This record gives sequence, structure tokens and C-alpha cells, in this order.
Amino acid sequence: MKRTYKMTKDNKNFSDQISPLRDEIDAIDSQILSLLARRQAQVEKVVALKKVHSIPVYHPAREEDLISKLRCKSHQSGLDPDFMEDLYRVILRQSRVKQTQRMEHKGVRPNAKVLIIGGKGQMGGLFASLFTKSGYEVRILTEHNWDHSQTLCQGIDLALVSVPIERTAQVIEKIAPFLPSTALLADLTSVKKEPVSKMLSAHKGPVLGVHPLFGPTLSCLDKQIIVVTPGRDPVSCQWFTEQLTLWGAVIVESTPEEHDEIMEIVQALRHFATFCFGDFLCHRQTKLSRTLEFSSPIYRLELGMVGRLFAQDSALYAQIIFATPERRNLLKEFIISLGRHVEMLETNDIQSFMDQFNHVAKWFGPFSDQAMRESTFLIDKLIERF
Amino acid sequence: MKRTYKMTKDNKNFSDQISPLRDEIDAIDSQILSLLARRQAQVEKVVALKKVHSIPVYHPAREEDLISKLRCKSHQSGLDPDFMEDLYRVILRQSRVKQTQRMEHKGVRPNAKVLIIGGKGQMGGLFASLFTKSGYEVRILTEHNWDHSQTLCQGIDLALVSVPIERTAQVIEKIAPFLPSTALLADLTSVKKEPVSKMLSAHKGPVLGVHPLFGPTLSCLDKQIIVVTPGRDPVSCQWFTEQLTLWGAVIVESTPEEHDEIMEIVQALRHFATFCFGDFLCHRQTKLSRTLEFSSPIYRLELGMVGRLFAQDSALYAQIIFATPERRNLLKEFIISLGRHVEMLETNDIQSFMDQFNHVAKWFGPFSDQAMRESTFLIDKLIERF
Repeated sequence: MKRTYKMTKDNKNFSDQISPLRDEIDAIDSQILSLLARRQAQVEKVVALKKVHSIPVYHPAREEDLISKLRCKSHQSGLDPDFMEDLYRVILRQSRVKQTQRMEHKGVRPNAKVLIIGGKGQMGGLFASLFTKSGYEVRILTEHNWDHSQTLCQGIDLALVSVPIERTAQVIEKIAPFLPSTALLADLTSVKKEPVSKMLSAHKGPVLGVHPLFGPTLSCLDKQIIVVTPGRDPVSCQWFTEQLTLWGAVIVESTPEEHDEIMEIVQALRHFATFCFGDFLCHRQTKLSRTLEFSSPIYRLELGMVGRLFAQDSALYAQIIFATPERRNLLKEFIISLGRHVEMLETNDIQSFMDQFNHVAKWFGPFSDQAMRESTFLIDKLIERF
Repeated sequence: MKRTYKMTKDNKNFSDQISPLRDEIDAIDSQILSLLARRQAQVEKVVALKKVHSIPVYHPAREEDLISKLRCKSHQSGLDPDFMEDLYRVILRQSRVKQTQRMEHKGVRPNAKVLIIGGKGQMGGLFASLFTKSGYEVRILTEHNWDHSQTLCQGIDLALVSVPIERTAQVIEKIAPFLPSTALLADLTSVKKEPVSKMLSAHKGPVLGVHPLFGPTLSCLDKQIIVVTPGRDPVSCQWFTEQLTLWGAVIVESTPEEHDEIMEIVQALRHFATFCFGDFLCHRQTKLSRTLEFSSPIYRLELGMVGRLFAQDSALYAQIIFATPERRNLLKEFIISLGRHVEMLETNDIQSFMDQFNHVAKWFGPFSDQAMRESTFLIDKLIERF
């Protein structure tokens, strides 16, 4: 194997000596890789067996037992036990993920009938696929088969509205008359006040507002947050939130009003502030790649957050940012409030900056320390990786 | 080997079948462990060789080469390449840490005399400790032993100025007359134009501007970035940058002008934008803890960045943000440029937002995808951990 690192005469000798050592390391790595592939094959046999016997995937005792034995052996072999544990946490997690992917399909109400309105869209498609895998009868309603909506609504247990925000109200009005009175009507829109009130007036049965706080590109809901805002008859809605939980999601309950107010901050303001920062970098024609060479991991992480926004769909973010007049007002308020800082910059008023800084720091309180801890952990991961 | 998991009659059969599979997995794990121990032994030989030839530990090209090859082979063996990369990042980091621990004490010029001005401060103290461990003779000059500065300067090879930004110029002027003409004069200030020009006019020997892009709380410089801006006689400065590299740091060379311009963005603008965001949250009395319950991991990460800023010292950030008139102007320009967005918010001009968004996205170019990949990796880590 040829290596092509730039070299001078001075280190030619070094290179001759190091080459066989590196080849040996490469050979060891190949063997490790083969063993990992064999390990994976064995794990798959275990999964198949567990499936036959309906045994859960995750076996904490088996994992801890395995880790302790390995720690002990590492010690004997002169390896750092913490390192070995780190490594096996990665291996065991991969093994768990693979197993969960095969097992997660359990349904709370298998064979129940679910109609997904907008089920060909990305988010609708994700839910269609989850329901299908869990044994539900899934029907899809789009603009193209709208003529059959009455037939499709017959005997359904859940109608899930997953259409763009500006068409939600209209779609609810059109579909509601066809729903059985016992059917649960729910929507996946990222605002909740208007859709929930529209569902309550258009349908007399159970109503639930749902807002999944993630994009539609996920393959699994593990630990993802979903906000639900109960509308009517929460008992009849319960099976649906239980199903979301079983898929791995974390459910947060709220009112439509509180939800919308918090989303103004969590979504609109945050994305808008990120947009403004990226827009200014572009406006100034900043040399992005050179600033990255000068980057501490934390700048890299922060600039990464900006880059991440612009890697996504402009229409999606336009929808989030311009969703309601309240949001647009909040963002205007944000821009205007920044004007307060101009004077302290013009007069080089460091004291005023520090006073304001300390005031905010006090308000953030214990969250700051937690944030420090969490972000330090992530920065370490970033250094490890990149 | 005996297993002690609780079992019922029902799964006795399961247990009989799974036992040999698990034994096989245990045997594979033992082999992996032996290979890792052999790998470590090889790495130690590499270290010994590097030590003889004074070659730095971290070899980004070698690591990336190794990772790409493994990703490719994983694919062929039916292993998930991301999983394999995760695993090897852990292995390579461990290997790097072990190597750095062995190398970092090595001095490029052991017994050389280093004077650290401000050596009782945090950053000065870090460098004092690194130099001491590497066999240098370290002398510390502070306000308290300033009377002895002339004696302390006798025969020194390096004078390193590590005092607050506003005292740097004055300290350089005071110390320069005592320095041997062959001594290297360097500073650790976070701006470079003024200190480097001051060092050049006050001292006739070698001059180097140095800006470590990290806080003083680190225990090891592994992969940390240090910007150096050569002033005079780079050949005589080389041993010092080699020493920094040997401690694990990555050296980026620049001019004082380029350094200061880039830091306006990387430090001042970024921190100021974060300050503005936190200040607005506080101003609006946002219910922080409730917004966190509604948080996707990415919001948690972004709010964590804000909280992190306010967990730190206001004086430090005031220093960074108000450092030069150019910085203050840039920040004013930032605030004023945001005013451009008010109209599109007032008129609900979604099209204009999307046009601007797409323009910036195009400008970000391939960085966006890279950012998406990196931040997705971190978000996964965040979910895994918290």
C-alpha cells in the first residue's frame, strides 16, 4: 500500500521505519472489522430467536455483565478499561438499534383504520409508514383521490390531517362531515390555535392537536418530542398518544395558546435569528472556509447550526417564520430591540454592556451551568470526531 | 461459563438456544480485545519512533485515510460505515491521547529560559506549566516582582506576554529594553495588529504574535488551534511553534491584519449575536424551562450555546466585543443591516424571504451539507446522553 504524505529528505528515514508498523496496524484493523461483521451476524441470530419467543431486545443485565467482564479483561491486557467501555457502548448501541428496527412495530390498536390526509407528503408519509408497520389499516387521501373521500372515511378510527399550514383549515372543513362521530380527528400542523378550534367546530367527536417537533426525515422516533394539545374527549384520544410513546416519542401536553406562544420563541425567533446571522455573513462576503480554519470547536458548532438552516427547505422555514401575525410582530420587536445596543457600541460603553450581561446571566440562572456542561460534552465529541 | 438471568419455564427453551450464540459472541469479543491490545502495542512503537524523529503525534491525513478505507471495507462486509467510523473515532482518539501523554513533556529546546509576563494569570499559568513539564527553565514576572524584571530577563530565550489586552502595549514597552537581542518576544493577546507592531518597534530581535483559540482551563492542547502571526525572523521563532505542535496544538499562520479581520467575525460578531438573543429572551421574560420541555434536541443545543455564554465572565466578553473600533463598527453594521428585514415582516412578503434564503444558501454552498452532517452527529450524541 502506498502512502503519499509530503516528505523531506530528513524524514525519509522515519518513513521507511514507520511504514511496516502502519501496515501491521492496518492488518489488525482488517481483522477487527471481520470480527465485528461476524459479531453482527451472531447478533442477528439472537434477534431472530428473540422474535420467535417475543423477548424484548434490550437486556440491561446482559449488557452490564458483558461490560464488566470486558473491563476486567482490558485491565489484564493493558488496555484502559474506560476506553474499552466507551468502545463497547458504541458497539452495543449499534446492536440495539439494529434489533429495535426489527422489533418496533407493535400496535396499540392493531387493525384500527387510520386515514392520513396528505399522506403522500413527507410528514404524512412518515406516519403512514409507522402505522402500516404497526399493523394498522392505513388509507391515504390526497388531492388526487379527493372524490373518494366519503368512501375512505367510512369506519375510520383516526383521521390525521397532514397538509401545509395554509390549507389546514379548509381541509378540516371539507373532511369533517364524512367522519364517523366516534372517529378521532387530529392534525400535525406546527401551529395549534386555529387548527384545533377549527377541528372542534367542524367535528363533534374526539379532537387532538399534535405537533411533532422534528423533521420528516427521521427513521425512528426514539426520544423525539411531540406536543399534544387536547381538544375534546381525551380518554378516546389516549390510544393514539400511547402509540406515539410506543414508537419512542416523548409526549408533552399543552394548550393551543401556550403551544403557539412558546413556538414563537422556539421556532420562529430562533430560526429567524439564525437566518439574520447567515444573511449578514453572506452580505459581507465573509471568507467562510478561512474563518473555519481559525475555528475553535465551539465556533465550528455555532456556524454549523447556521449552515444547517440553509441546507434545508426555504419554503418550510418561510412557513414557520411567517405563520401568524403574532410571530411577525415578535420578530419585528426583536429587530427593533437590537437598536438599543447601538449607543453602547458608539460610545464604547463597556460598563453598560457588562451590567446588561450580568443582568441576563442572573436571569438565565442555573440553566447556564447546565448549558455549559452539556455543550462542553458536545464540544469534546466534536473534537473527537472532526 | 454460567449465566444467572432470571428465567421461567417458558423461556427455558429460548435460553438453551441462545446460550451457544452468546458464547460465540463472547469469544468474538475476546478476540477483538486481544487485537486491540496488539494494536496498542504497535501504536506505542510508532510513538517511540516519532519521539526519536520529533514528529508530531496527530496526523490528520493518516487518520482520514484510515477512516475512509475502513468505511469502504465496512460496506463490503455488511457493516454500517457510520457505526464503523464512530468506533474508530473512539479508537483513534484513545491512541492520540496515549501518544500525546508520552510526547507532551518533550522539549524542543530543553533548558532554554522562558520568561512569562503575567505568568500568574490563567493563560500564563497554563503555559508556565507546559514549559516546566517539558524541561524549560521558567521564570514568572508579575506586578509584584516587577522590580526584578531586569534580572529576570537576563539570558532568556523567550519572553511571553500574557497580560490583559489593555495593558499589553504598555508591558511590551516596559520589558523590551531588558531583553537580550536574540530573545524571541511573543504575546498571547486575542488581537494581533497593535501588539505585533508594538513588539516590532520596541524589540529588535525575533517577534511572533500568538493567539491560542481556547480558554485557559484545558489540561491538554490536543487538536486545539493556535494562530501565529510572524513578526520578524521566522527561523528563530520556529522552535517555539514546533513546541506548540508537539504539545498537540494545530498551528494556523496568518498576518496580524487577516487575523484581526477574521476574529471580528469568529469572536466579536458571533458572541454579540448570541448576547443579543439572550438579552431579548430576558427582556421578554420568556419561560425558559417551559420552552426547554418543548425542545427538539437542536433547540436545546442552540439555547445551550446562549446559556453557555452567560455562564462565563462578562469582562472577558466585553474585552472581546469592544476590543477595537473596527469591531464596534462591524457590530453596529450588523444591527443596522437587520433593519432591512422589517419591511418583509410588515408586508408578510414570504417570496422575498425565500429569495433571500436561497441566495444565502447558494453562497454557503457545500458547507451547508457538511454542517448538516456534523450537527446531526452531535444531535444524536445529545439524544444518546441526555
